[in-house]
Amino acid sequence: MSDRPSPIRPPAVAVIFTSRRTKIDDAGYTAMADEMDRLAAAQPGYLGIRSVRDPGTRDGITVSYWRDDASARAWKRVLEHREAQRLGRERWYERWEIVVAEVTRTYEGDARG
Amino acid sequence: MSDRPSPIRPPAVAVIFTSRRTKIDDAGYTAMADEMDRLAAAQPGYLGIRSVRDPGTRDGITVSYWRDDASARAWKRVLEHREAQRLGRERWYERWEIVVAEVTRTYEGDARG
Repeated sequence: MSDRPSPIRPPAVAVIFTSRRTKIDDAGYTAMADEMDRLAAAQPGYLGIRSVRDPGTRDGITVSYWRDDASARAWKRVLEHREAQRLGRERWYERWEIVVAEVTRTYEGDARG
Repeated sequence: MSDRPSPIRPPAVAVIFTSRRTKIDDAGYTAMADEMDRLAAAQPGYLGIRSVRDPGTRDGITVSYWRDDASARAWKRVLEHREAQRLGRERWYERWEIVVAEVTRTYEGDARG
């Protein structure tokens, strides 16, 4: 995740993408994942992204936040993203899960207390 | 995350906990995190948990799923969990963010196609 992500506030839609990576094509995967992060950030309604993968277990969670459901759905249909989804299903993910949810409230804090 | 998590279906509430760990007290943290996973799973309305941390960046995302908002709020108030939250704020997290959201739809797939 970025060093100091913008706080998320309702109204917003969360797209929670959970996956386990195969051992296939690590360099190709990383390049595509970085490109998708950049492309997502350029879409209308994009609010932010939080992404973590454990290189040991190959489990990852990426949460992208959108202004509304229409922007979340539009990102799903972007051509380059559809191609990444296809490669993911065929090659990069042993399994994956997407949960779409409407943000109702948020809290945050840091070490300053 | 567990090896084959149960699929999440609406109605459900997602609690998305994003954090960056300090370098403090790794063993104590891991023990508490494991205990909280066990305790959460014993609460009414618990549907499942997905959790990933990158040991390199110390960034983590844990998503717990609940049957409804009341169960998510009840878990927040469980005494042992409140103590873990306090230790987290004081010691274990450089920063943290919680986003609560109502699940509207889900998709999933695996390498079998």
